[in-house]
Amino acid sequence: MVKKEVIFNFVGFLLILEGIFMFLGIPFSIYYQDNDIYVLLFTGLFTSLFGLVLFLISKNKDKDIRKREGYIVVSIGWIVTSLFGALPFVIHGSIPSYTDAFFETMSGFTTTGASILNDIEALPHGLLFWRSVTQWLGGMGMIVLSLAILPILGIGGMQLFVAEVPGPTKDKLHPRVRETAVRLWGIYVLLTFVEVLLLVIGGMTLFDAVCHSFTTMATGGFSTKQASIAYYQSPFIHYVIIFFMFAAGVNFTLHYHLLHGRFENLKKNEEFKFYLTVILFWTFFIAVILYLTNYGSAEQSFRDSLFQVVSIITTTGFVTADYEIWGTLLLLIFFLFLFSGSCAGSTGGGIKIVRHLLLFKNSFLELRRLIHPRAVIPVRYNGHSVPQDIISNILAFFLFYIFIFIMGSLVMAALGLDFMTAIGSVATSLGNVGPAIGSVGPTDNFANIPTLGKWFLSFFMLLGRLELFTILVIFSPAFWKS
Amino acid sequence: MVKKEVIFNFVGFLLILEGIFMFLGIPFSIYYQDNDIYVLLFTGLFTSLFGLVLFLISKNKDKDIRKREGYIVVSIGWIVTSLFGALPFVIHGSIPSYTDAFFETMSGFTTTGASILNDIEALPHGLLFWRSVTQWLGGMGMIVLSLAILPILGIGGMQLFVAEVPGPTKDKLHPRVRETAVRLWGIYVLLTFVEVLLLVIGGMTLFDAVCHSFTTMATGGFSTKQASIAYYQSPFIHYVIIFFMFAAGVNFTLHYHLLHGRFENLKKNEEFKFYLTVILFWTFFIAVILYLTNYGSAEQSFRDSLFQVVSIITTTGFVTADYEIWGTLLLLIFFLFLFSGSCAGSTGGGIKIVRHLLLFKNSFLELRRLIHPRAVIPVRYNGHSVPQDIISNILAFFLFYIFIFIMGSLVMAALGLDFMTAIGSVATSLGNVGPAIGSVGPTDNFANIPTLGKWFLSFFMLLGRLELFTILVIFSPAFWKS
Repeated sequence: MVKKEVIFNFVGFLLILEGIFMFLGIPFSIYYQDNDIYVLLFTGLFTSLFGLVLFLISKNKDKDIRKREGYIVVSIGWIVTSLFGALPFVIHGSIPSYTDAFFETMSGFTTTGASILNDIEALPHGLLFWRSVTQWLGGMGMIVLSLAILPILGIGGMQLFVAEVPGPTKDKLHPRVRETAVRLWGIYVLLTFVEVLLLVIGGMTLFDAVCHSFTTMATGGFSTKQASIAYYQSPFIHYVIIFFMFAAGVNFTLHYHLLHGRFENLKKNEEFKFYLTVILFWTFFIAVILYLTNYGSAEQSFRDSLFQVVSIITTTGFVTADYEIWGTLLLLIFFLFLFSGSCAGSTGGGIKIVRHLLLFKNSFLELRRLIHPRAVIPVRYNGHSVPQDIISNILAFFLFYIFIFIMGSLVMAALGLDFMTAIGSVATSLGNVGPAIGSVGPTDNFANIPTLGKWFLSFFMLLGRLELFTILVIFSPAFWKS
Repeated sequence: MVKKEVIFNFVGFLLILEGIFMFLGIPFSIYYQDNDIYVLLFTGLFTSLFGLVLFLISKNKDKDIRKREGYIVVSIGWIVTSLFGALPFVIHGSIPSYTDAFFETMSGFTTTGASILNDIEALPHGLLFWRSVTQWLGGMGMIVLSLAILPILGIGGMQLFVAEVPGPTKDKLHPRVRETAVRLWGIYVLLTFVEVLLLVIGGMTLFDAVCHSFTTMATGGFSTKQASIAYYQSPFIHYVIIFFMFAAGVNFTLHYHLLHGRFENLKKNEEFKFYLTVILFWTFFIAVILYLTNYGSAEQSFRDSLFQVVSIITTTGFVTADYEIWGTLLLLIFFLFLFSGSCAGSTGGGIKIVRHLLLFKNSFLELRRLIHPRAVIPVRYNGHSVPQDIISNILAFFLFYIFIFIMGSLVMAALGLDFMTAIGSVATSLGNVGPAIGSVGPTDNFANIPTLGKWFLSFFMLLGRLELFTILVIFSPAFWKS
């Protein structure tokens, strides 16, 4: 039996928060004398009050969330906040179609960053701010989700990646979630604050600095400029954003250790080392190709390569250069990056570095197992043997990911997209990246995707964001039995 | 220690056989008064004598092949026969480049069917016959390999698919290989003979009927016509070839059971049922789309759909229609078919139906394992529980397949191919299919691939044909230790 009250209570709480956050853009709208003040006031009030009603009618009930409710609460939370979060755009009229507004908001909360906007600068500042806030909140949600909730739900081997969550799974989520959240949100807020400071020093307006910091730390990628970060010429700004995209792609428990001076945790962490290696390798590889093909100065080649590699691998999706005109090889490489993902326990999406690492290790060990069929050869990670059921879970995750990617591509092709746009749009949605290839490349947007396609892609963003299993479990018959 | 004599002895034996088979085209060349008689005579003698020398110098030694030699013998066998098999084309001059001739021959022996020929009809009949023979021999080799040798080597879960190979792996190959070979080659020859008969009845010349039967039963796809089977207008010929492609894609032990009247084995076999279901589902799906888009009559839509679906899924690669002009959706579907493969224990290549089936089952069971984390839930196949190490092996196979496909695509893109040709050429080579997408589609050929690319693709054909692991194991350090 699923306890409905638990779900109402939690969703109500989320909506109250969401409404309050809608108000946050109002000061900017007043300052810039925009016309979206009353829209934000109204939708913020409406959302909060709706949430309050839900919260109150489910009050004083048993609020212990167990695994079963965990799956549902997490999925519904993301959907309901997107449904309400789309309202300001529609009511104001700057995104007249509800489909478009929902796509944009889901893209925000899932920290994807795919946009249907053709003229971002035309939006009033309050709405632009709200758009950035959706990503920042999504990033916050993701930190708790990936470091406290998903490990307990046993999803995709997440239990393995977090030192704070040892041993057997527990059935009650509450205490540990709160503790983890408070610790790591502090780091999240701190990093956001430092980035704002640096971007303002680099010459951004405070408004743009806050918006871009929100979407950097969330590995979101929404920009307040149509041209994304390419709008800014300053190498300083580029490097600042690169640094914070990189930081946002790191497991936040590592930040926690770093802040407490425990550098050895960083050095011991295989995922972090692999993440760093992958980024450096491809940055130099691509920079050399760019430089040799007369792309520009060595610094320019290096910076544009580093920026795009970090942006796509961390699943942020900011753009300083159009990799679609860098030749087939680099285009293919960037397409593959859509499947990389950053570290588990970061705000990034995608398959995640640690899963790739463990799958690699397991595959190569299989060769040794063939030669020594009687030997038991476990995968080792950070000095420990990984239980076979976690490897099996990660493998299943990977196969579902590929399967959903393929089915999604077929759907998008059936809706009339060309080959590269079909596979690119699904890969970037599932991976929560933003830009892709084909006609949804780094200098394009998603405005011309058919309506049905936008709903499908929104669903894929959610699926990817919730590590597939959270949603898939709900659809499985065994979930509803007994 | 690897015993060199064992390898020499085996390769010598293969070359003697290969030389003898080169002679077989001579009667046709005499009948058609072609100019390749002396070429075939000379290369046949040269190959046989070379083989005889190898065979004799390694005679009277310990000839027991153990697992370690098994991997090497199988890999080297395919390479050496391709190296020699290319000679007739080069010496005759109809394929002046040795790279091209090697590509064509490797494509033959691996039963891929990718061709570099721009004007197939210009070749003399003896050489055309030899070209078809390479595939027929490759198919013969594959039957023994997949039903007797690979299961004992423990590769890719093959031990699971063959009722004849029960229980623990044995260390000595000889007796069982011979027994299996004799039984199943009888069926192979019989089916080839019946197809020749039917094709002649359908109006083909004896020469074309024999060549096409050879390459059908091998799921090879080499045709004696530049237009492939589209050259023939007769629906009867199309249906005959469809039937035999389908039969060649079935596990040959099932044919054996059928011949002995044991129909219940067919009905019980989950792989066969899935194979049939997949083919029927996609045939109707595609036929309906073709018919609705005014492609032609219902019969024409059905036949062309059925032909191409069976041809690509069985990894044969014959062509009666160009699926590249059927729209993005169908193009994408045919691209995905390149990863399907037919049944294990058939002459077809690719990932194989049974692996897909087991991966599917295992992934969906993972959802149940999430909900009931303490329960042990094994995958069941044909009424038995599948051991976890076999599932693990199949998963590793799949991941290596994807990894090699990706790396290969990057290499081909680096050599200057466009996106679709890069991914298409590698997918079709690894899957031993033949036609692909992009500029190596069903109406194109591989002539314009750069030289280095042809060597890479030849290697991918071999990798795919030998179920990856046979080759990968040899490259692993553990193989050469102790």
